Amino acid sequence: MKVKVTGVGLYLPPKIETAEDIAPKIEKPVDWIIEKSGVSERRVSEIDVDQMGAIAGKEALGKGGKPDLIINASGVPKQTIPDTSTFYQRELGFEGIPSFSVHCTCLSFITALNTAASLIHSGSYNRILIISSDRGTRGRNFNEPESASLLGDGAAAVVLEKSLENESSELIYFDMKTFPSCANLTEVRGGGTNKHPQDPETSLADNLFTMDGPAVYKIARKEVYRMMLKTMKTTRLKREEVDWVIPHQASGKAVDAYISTGGFAKEKVVSIISEFGNCVAASVPMAFATAVQDGRIKRGNLLLFIGTGAGLSAACALIKY
Amino acid sequence: MKVKVTGVGLYLPPKIETAEDIAPKIEKPVDWIIEKSGVSERRVSEIDVDQMGAIAGKEALGKGGKPDLIINASGVPKQTIPDTSTFYQRELGFEGIPSFSVHCTCLSFITALNTAASLIHSGSYNRILIISSDRGTRGRNFNEPESASLLGDGAAAVVLEKSLENESSELIYFDMKTFPSCANLTEVRGGGTNKHPQDPETSLADNLFTMDGPAVYKIARKEVYRMMLKTMKTTRLKREEVDWVIPHQASGKAVDAYISTGGFAKEKVVSIISEFGNCVAASVPMAFATAVQDGRIKRGNLLLFIGTGAGLSAACALIKY
Repeated sequence: MKVKVTGVGLYLPPKIETAEDIAPKIEKPVDWIIEKSGVSERRVSEIDVDQMGAIAGKEALGKGGKPDLIINASGVPKQTIPDTSTFYQRELGFEGIPSFSVHCTCLSFITALNTAASLIHSGSYNRILIISSDRGTRGRNFNEPESASLLGDGAAAVVLEKSLENESSELIYFDMKTFPSCANLTEVRGGGTNKHPQDPETSLADNLFTMDGPAVYKIARKEVYRMMLKTMKTTRLKREEVDWVIPHQASGKAVDAYISTGGFAKEKVVSIISEFGNCVAASVPMAFATAVQDGRIKRGNLLLFIGTGAGLSAACALIKY
Repeated sequence: MKVKVTGVGLYLPPKIETAEDIAPKIEKPVDWIIEKSGVSERRVSEIDVDQMGAIAGKEALGKGGKPDLIINASGVPKQTIPDTSTFYQRELGFEGIPSFSVHCTCLSFITALNTAASLIHSGSYNRILIISSDRGTRGRNFNEPESASLLGDGAAAVVLEKSLENESSELIYFDMKTFPSCANLTEVRGGGTNKHPQDPETSLADNLFTMDGPAVYKIARKEVYRMMLKTMKTTRLKREEVDWVIPHQASGKAVDAYISTGGFAKEKVVSIISEFGNCVAASVPMAFATAVQDGRIKRGNLLLFIGTGAGLSAACALIKY
């Protein structure tokens, strides 16, 4: 699909929380935190997801004018109803632009990319703003040290448009798989009809993030590896031809697996996990925006967006930037 | 876009709650309920949204085999993480099928239709199962009699596939607009980062449905009328050429407005509001499935799906069935 990322935006909350800061809250030493999560520090936002996302969205739009569609591609919403896209639009000062959310937790951005590309390809829209904004620190369970040491806050956005005939930019390939047998490995059980706040048996912990990290890692590594091999085979590309791997920043170990198991060169894998933690759906576009803004990613580069998310799902998108 | 609805499914929870049953809970007489909401009775589900949706999904799939994508298009999720599509898949007994959610509250189904059509048009998928399942009765606030008297439970599903060259089935037109200035007119403020359950100031009412019905009706009627006129003008169709109007079942008054303000013939507007209430995102596909299953909607019919949802959004899709 002939689409092009014409803008990127990033919002990094100014407040930094280090491994030292979090150690007493989860009753674990700093070394344990670094070893288990790979997260040295994370940002903690004092503004809500809609304001965070709107800052990133505004930067992505630049001077290019209004989008004709706003897609929220985050892990956790601002509230149940209405969906977060409406609140981004309000913060951006627009009115009348169609807005909706695409949700598959940490893979929301990658899935939204393919969805937006299809909506442009079908002629439904011409200039789509995709915003991922997550405030994972709001849902940390300090009684679950491993997951609590992973989460961070951040937002990023991209603008996707049709690429011109003489431009090489395109979405080359997309794949996704969901394995509901692993649905309970990563959860926030509250927030819906399942563990409703008005039920007396709903506990505070039901509204916090819970993950069986080792079990997820084991399955995710296998499924992502399979998906990567299939992607290379289907597109007849070699690993060396991929300029940048932009993985979901699930954990230090998960990002490293693209090197150790995946076989990609270390310098090609964009990693922001140590400085920002796992920012749920915002991790992928944050890593992307970081590498675009620091000049590593250049026009014409071949980019592999890849990762896993609660579901359990694996997804990837291969893009000519 | 050359797409065709090849299957429909419906799940109506067996338990009926009448206006008489609800009257003492909201301290209003039966006549008041019927007059304000237009809802004589609604279904109350004793199974959760994933099981409800899977029953409808199974019926829609029929003997046609597995889908290659499952889209959840509901108003309220089963839980925050993972998204409801995973749980549908688990209930359907599948594994490995990509799944995600499209969310824009009551318009999730109409938006998912256009999204799915685009994904088929782009070649990403061939057989998409869209499920809308909502259990609005879980979030009723009995201290807000008007909205509490509206909500009901139900689920419906469709299978969307590419239509063959010699078939007339297609998605002719889609439009959507979102007005964030009206974001606070219809809300469930909890369930996300805004009014998080762990904040001491979050109240039980924050997790319940709240709506300024008269304000929504006033704006919605105007915006939907404009959108309908634009749809007719853009597609050069006359109201008489539309075989069936399938509106969101927001309230009795809202459905009637398609006749009184919209100018459609009463017998062409599919209304299930009196028997089932406002079933959030499930209302549109429930009305559709009802009229397909009772034989009113026939192949080749021109269908106008239209409505408003929290956001505030208005959307419509014109489909040759």
